[in-house]
Amino acid sequence: MSEAPQTAKVVFQPSGRRGTFPIGTPLLDAARSLGVYVESVCGGRGICGRCQISVSEGSFAKENLTSAADHLDGESEAESRYRSLRKLPGDRRLSCQATILGNLVVDVPTEAQTNRQVVRKRAEARSITPKTAVSLTTVTLTEPSMETPHGDADRLRDAVATSLDLSFVTMDPALLPRVQAILRKGQWTTTAAVYRDNGTIPEIIALWPVEKTSIYGLAVDIGSTTIAAHLCDLQTGRTVSSAGTSNPQIRFGEDLMSRVSYVQMNPSKLPDLTRCVREAINALIGKLVSDVGADRADVLDATFVGNPVMHHLFLGIDPVELGGAPFALAVSDSMSLKARDLDLELNPGARVYMLPCIAGHVGSDAAAAALAEAPANSQDITLLVDVGTNAEIVLGNKDRLLAASSPTGPAFEGAEISSGQRAAPGAIERIRIDRDTLEPRFKVIGLDEWSDEEGFADKIDQVGVTGICGSGIIEVVAEMFLCGLITEDGVIDGEMTARTSRIVANGRTFSYIIASEGLEISILQTDIRAIQLAKAALYAGIKLLQDKLGTTHIDRIRLAGAFGSYIDPQYALVLGLLPDCPLGGVAGVGNAAGTGARMALLNTDHRRAVETTVCTIEKIETALEPKFQEHFVNAMALPNKVDAFENLRAAISLPDRKEPSGSERGRSGRRRRSA
Amino acid sequence: MSEAPQTAKVVFQPSGRRGTFPIGTPLLDAARSLGVYVESVCGGRGICGRCQISVSEGSFAKENLTSAADHLDGESEAESRYRSLRKLPGDRRLSCQATILGNLVVDVPTEAQTNRQVVRKRAEARSITPKTAVSLTTVTLTEPSMETPHGDADRLRDAVATSLDLSFVTMDPALLPRVQAILRKGQWTTTAAVYRDNGTIPEIIALWPVEKTSIYGLAVDIGSTTIAAHLCDLQTGRTVSSAGTSNPQIRFGEDLMSRVSYVQMNPSKLPDLTRCVREAINALIGKLVSDVGADRADVLDATFVGNPVMHHLFLGIDPVELGGAPFALAVSDSMSLKARDLDLELNPGARVYMLPCIAGHVGSDAAAAALAEAPANSQDITLLVDVGTNAEIVLGNKDRLLAASSPTGPAFEGAEISSGQRAAPGAIERIRIDRDTLEPRFKVIGLDEWSDEEGFADKIDQVGVTGICGSGIIEVVAEMFLCGLITEDGVIDGEMTARTSRIVANGRTFSYIIASEGLEISILQTDIRAIQLAKAALYAGIKLLQDKLGTTHIDRIRLAGAFGSYIDPQYALVLGLLPDCPLGGVAGVGNAAGTGARMALLNTDHRRAVETTVCTIEKIETALEPKFQEHFVNAMALPNKVDAFENLRAAISLPDRKEPSGSERGRSGRRRRSA
Repeated sequence: MSEAPQTAKVVFQPSGRRGTFPIGTPLLDAARSLGVYVESVCGGRGICGRCQISVSEGSFAKENLTSAADHLDGESEAESRYRSLRKLPGDRRLSCQATILGNLVVDVPTEAQTNRQVVRKRAEARSITPKTAVSLTTVTLTEPSMETPHGDADRLRDAVATSLDLSFVTMDPALLPRVQAILRKGQWTTTAAVYRDNGTIPEIIALWPVEKTSIYGLAVDIGSTTIAAHLCDLQTGRTVSSAGTSNPQIRFGEDLMSRVSYVQMNPSKLPDLTRCVREAINALIGKLVSDVGADRADVLDATFVGNPVMHHLFLGIDPVELGGAPFALAVSDSMSLKARDLDLELNPGARVYMLPCIAGHVGSDAAAAALAEAPANSQDITLLVDVGTNAEIVLGNKDRLLAASSPTGPAFEGAEISSGQRAAPGAIERIRIDRDTLEPRFKVIGLDEWSDEEGFADKIDQVGVTGICGSGIIEVVAEMFLCGLITEDGVIDGEMTARTSRIVANGRTFSYIIASEGLEISILQTDIRAIQLAKAALYAGIKLLQDKLGTTHIDRIRLAGAFGSYIDPQYALVLGLLPDCPLGGVAGVGNAAGTGARMALLNTDHRRAVETTVCTIEKIETALEPKFQEHFVNAMALPNKVDAFENLRAAISLPDRKEPSGSERGRSGRRRRSA
Repeated sequence: MSEAPQTAKVVFQPSGRRGTFPIGTPLLDAARSLGVYVESVCGGRGICGRCQISVSEGSFAKENLTSAADHLDGESEAESRYRSLRKLPGDRRLSCQATILGNLVVDVPTEAQTNRQVVRKRAEARSITPKTAVSLTTVTLTEPSMETPHGDADRLRDAVATSLDLSFVTMDPALLPRVQAILRKGQWTTTAAVYRDNGTIPEIIALWPVEKTSIYGLAVDIGSTTIAAHLCDLQTGRTVSSAGTSNPQIRFGEDLMSRVSYVQMNPSKLPDLTRCVREAINALIGKLVSDVGADRADVLDATFVGNPVMHHLFLGIDPVELGGAPFALAVSDSMSLKARDLDLELNPGARVYMLPCIAGHVGSDAAAAALAEAPANSQDITLLVDVGTNAEIVLGNKDRLLAASSPTGPAFEGAEISSGQRAAPGAIERIRIDRDTLEPRFKVIGLDEWSDEEGFADKIDQVGVTGICGSGIIEVVAEMFLCGLITEDGVIDGEMTARTSRIVANGRTFSYIIASEGLEISILQTDIRAIQLAKAALYAGIKLLQDKLGTTHIDRIRLAGAFGSYIDPQYALVLGLLPDCPLGGVAGVGNAAGTGARMALLNTDHRRAVETTVCTIEKIETALEPKFQEHFVNAMALPNKVDAFENLRAAISLPDRKEPSGSERGRSGRRRRSA
């Protein structure tokens, strides 16, 4: 006889915070207990309408739950009144009124969290010499005559071809119905935008009856978590505006593989995933052009990068083949498309260049990062790592370039960590543990002060301490290791209970309490295991590439991506996330994928360069390599069981090796995260 | 003080029959009195629903009327009952129930007249060696592997390029979401259709997981009155099915210029004209593919020809510039388009080749006819004439080719003639007048017997004698001239009242009564004037080209178009419609435009040929030529005031010249039809 479940699991997106709550818990209380920001100004009376949420329905394999709208109770009178008076959309609920009846994935709409959003993707400073695919030319035609009855559009094509020294130029058929009116309005002088790129026929894509001075291009990096877009002046090459937003696909699955399995289980929902990412991009475009007082129709070219799953979903391609070996891409080469065929709200004639993907797990974001960091142009051996839920790794120099991906999982982004969360106000991003007292001090996103500094106590109530984000997790594990709180095998040392009350027992393992006022923030043994698995996967992937290249020497390490920009290289080495290297040789390069996308947008030579790089790069499939497991097991240790880390040891003092006292010994390194 | 009008003008389309009726006349009665076929099997009780019509609303400049739905009275009880029970669409009325309250343009839906339709456009017998733009190739890929992570679509492109010996082939982006499923369904063997033509990049436009044997192409001639479409097997080059339908744009204006002025006065209706012609073509495609048990998706290529206004309206381009000097075409060169961009329901990847137009009045139909008749390939001087509402004329040989158009107006199609009608059952298509008795005998479309033959009287009740179509009008005027009923100046000779009661006075002029049982069919003086104006315009245009070419010698005359196929060359010469030529040198070539469209569909060399011909052809704008008026005045006479017509006189006996007895003398030839 089965009893009804007494609790339900609730996941809030896009923050990714989750928890288990008794049936009957008001949803707003659940959100607040997890530090999920849901606005409410009426005191939960169903009046202000600020606490709107929607339920994402479907089977969520990764969460092992099925979410349905009726896992919230029926509408209260207040909610019904609000719905009828204030036009609450059908799929929205007021979280102050709804109580939990079953498992839920709850989507907190963007407008409810806009003020809380921290999108850590910005345009990196980089001067790019423009040699764009779009040229402007102003031509003047003679008036039509009966003696030479050649079509106005044809005469315009001829004039444009002559003006640009082209043998032939075609015209976007969508312009045909407007050509005559534009020519007459401009009194036979018109400005034409011509698109020229390899593999395409030169085409007139836009016409104006006036001189046109400012035209723009768009470079977009579609990340699993965030989408970053840059608006560039196609004439000057300058990036005039940048903006980012959460990837709304998060409601269908937090990481790549969750989204793939969501599509696998809910195939009819594929168009929804495609539509929502395109809508988010269209909203970003609106923001970017309004930032500079431009119009959507002023945007004539766009480049897109993303990992293979994002790339496919954006194009409307079922990513299911990417979910299992042999991880076959539907398409990997670069492509030239029309923006309107992707429902992008730009100039109707605007074009899109999709950068090429490298392999089933190594997307065009990695290709773009390789373009931006240009290891292929140097004799120095460069390691380029983009840490996401799937780390993309490029290693080599101009003689030989290798690429692989490693399934690090979302631990570095704060998921799968008990107190983990994405980078958002309230998240601990940096932490130091006193070597003697073992007391932590930390810095929270949204506050300038460290927790032991004057003013912190006064201000922290405004944001709260809601969890630890990726960079904080790296630091806390590294600091715990450096303090001797955990052994080189990653076991929290139970003997430390004698030295600090922050180490407490949880059954057979121990945890470290960082904060206990308000929400308790602590590091569990399972959290350290999750980080070990993630870092070992990354390190083993890098080691494989080093094996293939035949050298352990690395001149420089470049950490791409949001995460790479915020982690401290020293802590990354202490953790053994990256191979040993002179500390000064490690640097974050920010959104290198976005930089590569801008380069490809602004200079077609860069398109040829990335196409060539992707062709010549050797793809290593880590899952096929017999030595992966050995490298992985060794990399479970801190920083590593076998590698010496001499550069690191020369720079800082690592703890002596000591045997663990707990029972975890020998259990590490036996699992490998499934892809 | 103005009184309400007591009568209203009603025009029925697509037949073009029109009349004036007392207010309150039941619409079905009006239709029947004009010989317009509207089915009705319930005796006008509003039960059978077969007599549905719709009202075309708007201002119709040519008819000088404004038509509106409320120019029919409100619904009867029977009609309301039928509408609710049988789902009568909102814009449909039952003509047995509706009575006339004001001026109307009434559209008799195609389904109501299908059985009555005579579309005189068929595929002419012509063997065309196929060298199509679409090639099929079947390739087998290796399965994807992690070692070579190249996209499935890219590997397919590579295999197809190798198979067809191409350096590069692209893929229709619309196929990308389906590539992986097709490859897996076909177990890595797939058949690809590749489109290759000048000015385009070779592209994979369709994929099948099986061997594909039959693929088709579509050749369409969009006439102002009828649309003819041919389905061709792209592998064998055979035409497997042909079909025609009325051009539904007729409801917006009977001839080209009426449609142009309709768009000018109702600019928001342009999309309606474009949509209705595309819908009619889509319906034709459905019929063609079902004829041969094929599917729309089996059609991969299409060619279109039409006069400039049809060409522009089909492409969604405002034709207003074509309505006045300098008759500037928006586009005249050939074009390669995607069928889906024209809303054509073919294979989603199907392509369209638009043949080039020659000039503002000489369309791609004339270019196609020139391709089919190939005057450019012969030393013989060929005159190619396509008689429509605007005659298109090509004259010359391989050394020099000239083209012009002449505004003949719709008289040759039966419009502007009191008893005129389009070619449909009941129309007199051939006529002979006894030289002694002056009694006529005639043949009616739909009946094999002549009117004086056994069986005619029994059968004529089934179709009725409803009017005279174009070929009948040519013959009756020529016969009247040969009998001496009209003078060489085209005046009906009033003295003939003495010899036959069929000549009757109408005020100051006379008319000839062909039939008086049932509907009276007669030829008025104004009808003869209309024919004279039309034939003089055509003849003057031809003469201008002869002047330019510097010779009156013509080796052969080819009459293209439906009309050209049905007129008797001898009568055309008697009338002076065409210049003198050995009678054996004159031949109808049927739908030469359709033949040219099929040639361009089936062999890309023919596309290059027509592009070259259109470039080299010299365009003569008749309106700009000072001698046009002189030629026109001379051509008002039968057969001509100055030209000897020696070949004709050698073959048949023309009447002696005599002075006219009526008062019409000297009034001829002073008007020129406005373009």
